[in-house]
Amino acid sequence: MKSELFKQMAVIGVGLIGGSVGLIARRKHLVRSVVGYGKKRGELQRAVTLGAIDRYFLSPQKAVEGADLIVLATPVGMFEKIACAIAPHLKEGAIVTDVGSVKGKEVERIESLLPSYVSFVGGHPIAGREKSGVEVASADLFSGMRCILTPTPRTHPAALKKVAALWKALGTTVIEMDPLVHDQIMAAVSHLPHLVAYALMETLLNTRVAKQDPIRFSAGGLRDFTRVAASASDMWRDIFLLNGARIVEMIDLYQGVLETLKKKIIAQDGAGLIEILDRARVLRQSLIGK
Amino acid sequence: MKSELFKQMAVIGVGLIGGSVGLIARRKHLVRSVVGYGKKRGELQRAVTLGAIDRYFLSPQKAVEGADLIVLATPVGMFEKIACAIAPHLKEGAIVTDVGSVKGKEVERIESLLPSYVSFVGGHPIAGREKSGVEVASADLFSGMRCILTPTPRTHPAALKKVAALWKALGTTVIEMDPLVHDQIMAAVSHLPHLVAYALMETLLNTRVAKQDPIRFSAGGLRDFTRVAASASDMWRDIFLLNGARIVEMIDLYQGVLETLKKKIIAQDGAGLIEILDRARVLRQSLIGK
Repeated sequence: MKSELFKQMAVIGVGLIGGSVGLIARRKHLVRSVVGYGKKRGELQRAVTLGAIDRYFLSPQKAVEGADLIVLATPVGMFEKIACAIAPHLKEGAIVTDVGSVKGKEVERIESLLPSYVSFVGGHPIAGREKSGVEVASADLFSGMRCILTPTPRTHPAALKKVAALWKALGTTVIEMDPLVHDQIMAAVSHLPHLVAYALMETLLNTRVAKQDPIRFSAGGLRDFTRVAASASDMWRDIFLLNGARIVEMIDLYQGVLETLKKKIIAQDGAGLIEILDRARVLRQSLIGK
Repeated sequence: MKSELFKQMAVIGVGLIGGSVGLIARRKHLVRSVVGYGKKRGELQRAVTLGAIDRYFLSPQKAVEGADLIVLATPVGMFEKIACAIAPHLKEGAIVTDVGSVKGKEVERIESLLPSYVSFVGGHPIAGREKSGVEVASADLFSGMRCILTPTPRTHPAALKKVAALWKALGTTVIEMDPLVHDQIMAAVSHLPHLVAYALMETLLNTRVAKQDPIRFSAGGLRDFTRVAASASDMWRDIFLLNGARIVEMIDLYQGVLETLKKKIIAQDGAGLIEILDRARVLRQSLIGK
């Protein structure tokens, strides 16, 4: 078949993203077969029923045997441990890629853990839902979205090309970016917003209002605003820890802005407030216009 | 007509909320006629065309003449000035109400500015859009929403009953609440979330990422998250100033939570992070379940 890019794909972690990769790759015949690895037999069985994988193993070593493409799709904090475990079992010429939200030094570490006859290509599809698990995997999860690939001087050009071809076939526009630049951008546009949503929920929990069914008193803002706070907590713990330095920088900036707003409120500085509010509105409108 | 609650309604400020009140009241024949007041003739003319009002004046004094219900629907910072201006022109037995997002001492002040032969009933329909203006006024804006009324010891029971009947007829469930309790709840569930969204936008503007079309790198979280930051800035300036004390209390609480999260990231305390993340997720799920 002309569309076939890989013979055997191993999906390590068959959740929302990994499950969707398997599902679309199988439907579009981008691979001959998809092998899944996970911890829970019931969920893997469900992934087979949903068409996300052909078969599965409860051992990552077994799952990668014979695979020419390995997709790491667990929470990003597990990547190093998995790379160590699968390294001796990878076949020569195999390509390892990932879908993690943190790149930077993580990419270097994974590269250093893999044998020299294997290529690693860091990847991050910009897609997600507030729900997790293979049950919400979907054939159009990546349609119209971007996938960032983060090649390094060690990345094999042919491997990069094949992984890019896969992500194009999965429906995304592929962008190449330096791993550290990726982490800086993500800290600003994704990691800080998520942290802010979690902080808002925690703040509400610390007030008496939390016991009074607060959504009754919200016109939808609270609901929209905190959609992200329903995301998988192990995934976000790993992101906050692994991109910690960049995120802390963003929190510092953000705390400065909060302090400014607070001072303007205390000083009853209406003109100063409207300046910030208008700027935010203009940026926001430029975001939704696209 | 049995459904008629008032003869002549004056809507002071014909925007999203005021325009929708007029529109629904006219369609449902809850009033015989609706007179609008605004600053811009073009917008008022548009409000007539859209069916939100029957006629208009560019002077609030003229707009309230002969009205038995006056609805204050400008940004909340203008209420006192308007109350002063219209006070001598109100007819005996008229009811003044408002749709402002801040109650508390504001209610007391407006009460004290109005003549004793007029009743004031504080009101706050929990409804809104990120867009403003009569163009987005809608016949179903209030359907299924709540409207909070904030009677005081001075509120006339018959006036309260009539305003409650109006809001029920407009589609809301009516809740009565102490004006100061209202402000505390709103500071938590609405005012802090809006401030947080504005602060996030301002933070993004202070990074280089703002120049790189950041929405490209966001899976939708940023878009949802900042929907509220597109709201009318004069309205939000007024809310931040008038409910300042309660909002500053909430900012303080929120800053404490941010500081805790930052410390846990710096300490690489995964267990501590997951505890907060899980709590947020549970609260969030309880919100969307309702």
